Amino acid sequence: MTMTSPAADPHDALTRLSGTLMRLSAVIEQRRAGDPSTSYVAKLTAKGGDAVLKKVGEEATELVMAAKDGAKDRIVAETADLWFHSLLVLSMHGLSAADVLAELARREGESGLEEFAKRPATKEMTP
Amino acid sequence: MTMTSPAADPHDALTRLSGTLMRLSAVIEQRRAGDPSTSYVAKLTAKGGDAVLKKVGEEATELVMAAKDGAKDRIVAETADLWFHSLLVLSMHGLSAADVLAELARREGESGLEEFAKRPATKEMTP
Amino acid sequence: MTMTSPAADPHDALTRLSGTLMRLSAVIEQRRAGDPSTSYVAKLTAKGGDAVLKKVGEEATELVMAAKDGAKDRIVAETADLWFHSLLVLSMHGLSAADVLAELARREGESGLEEFAKRPATKEMTP
Amino acid sequence: MTMTSPAADPHDALTRLSGTLMRLSAVIEQRRAGDPSTSYVAKLTAKGGDAVLKKVGEEATELVMAAKDGAKDRIVAETADLWFHSLLVLSMHGLSAADVLAELARREGESGLEEFAKRPATKEMTP
Repeated sequence: MTMTSPAADPHDALTRLSGTLMRLSAVIEQRRAGDPSTSYVAKLTAKGGDAVLKKVGEEATELVMAAKDGAKDRIVAETADLWFHSLLVLSMHGLSAADVLAELARREGESGLEEFAKRPATKEMTP
Repeated sequence: MTMTSPAADPHDALTRLSGTLMRLSAVIEQRRAGDPSTSYVAKLTAKGGDAVLKKVGEEATELVMAAKDGAKDRIVAETADLWFHSLLVLSMHGLSAADVLAELARREGESGLEEFAKRPATKEMTP
Repeated sequence: MTMTSPAADPHDALTRLSGTLMRLSAVIEQRRAGDPSTSYVAKLTAKGGDAVLKKVGEEATELVMAAKDGAKDRIVAETADLWFHSLLVLSMHGLSAADVLAELARREGESGLEEFAKRPATKEMTP
Repeated sequence: MTMTSPAADPHDALTRLSGTLMRLSAVIEQRRAGDPSTSYVAKLTAKGGDAVLKKVGEEATELVMAAKDGAKDRIVAETADLWFHSLLVLSMHGLSAADVLAELARREGESGLEEFAKRPATKEMTP
């Protein structure tokens, strides 16, 4: 039994890791309507959209500070917080991680990521 | 052969989508040392860490505005921008998407996501 | 003549400095409808409210980075940018520096600034 | 004597309002070393620089949300919060409102505010 556990196979472990955001998106979707006294997701959801968006601004600021400090552990933790709260924003608008991953994959497919080079530049030029 | 292309198999399509952040992380890593005249990643990297962090603050603000407008397309696009630029921050500190996904998976494993409920509360109580 | 110039009298210099935000608020109000090709205020206004708000997020991030670096010159410059762009937000909503100064003076008067101590705490407690 | 109280004279009222930020800066300077159990300024200062900067990011996000809602009362209150916390950042770096007002007055004097038009454009062009 232990020999066939997911963690034992490096390929399976990688697949499992890759799926984290989509699993998390599904869990958030379930928890949103849960009990605010036991679930952070339900509690924050109950406070309304602005409370969640405020967390996005807050976590972005914390990521900036962690990066300025060059503190790798905090960079990882704050990015995790930032992604987590953006998943919650997505969920509150009927969206999920898959929508964002599909958008990133689309850009990647179109241009081998070079769309990233063009888009912001264009953005600057067209007010 | 074209009949069995990855996109034709829903399972493969999902696996491919799941791997987007890790592939993107690898591409960013390669591009960072590239030609600033053709690569957005190389150009932004050349401007230094603050330029990338400024983008994080900017994209977080744009996500907040898109969410306030309830504009789904922009919510997806701005979240994609935010995640993309946080991947770039990770890369500049020798980190990658896998580190953040592992952190999120760790929290998920420990507590079925309930660590998310406890952590911020604790954070508020311990200055 | 030069002996009675405003700068010659420390009290007048202080009064003039104190009035900076209100003067600036009035100038912004005039410039908003100006020529976008010569006025930064008119140009940014023409881009719409989101462009101005994006600058608020951007300048806040730059202030955070300047403070993390302990770079006094940049802390002053970025705070000036942040205040300037918040004056522009006020102006776009029919408000001015006087409204914000009156609010700060009101809090000061009520509690000798102690309202600042109570308000955020209360905010945390009432979702 | 009470008949000539400052509030009775519109000119004095204006002068008093104008001086709000500088008075507030002085009060913050005094309170920083105060008792964290009674003073918000002392309590936040005791948490360290990052706690104050996090508030800057948070209040900027709240100003953005208030402006998106077109809620004038909240725009004023959030701008007051944002300015207040930036005064605290200044204080922690040995600076005060006067430094920022002097910088804004300097830009105003140099160019009739037109420096604001040129500076950001230049900033975009020089990475």
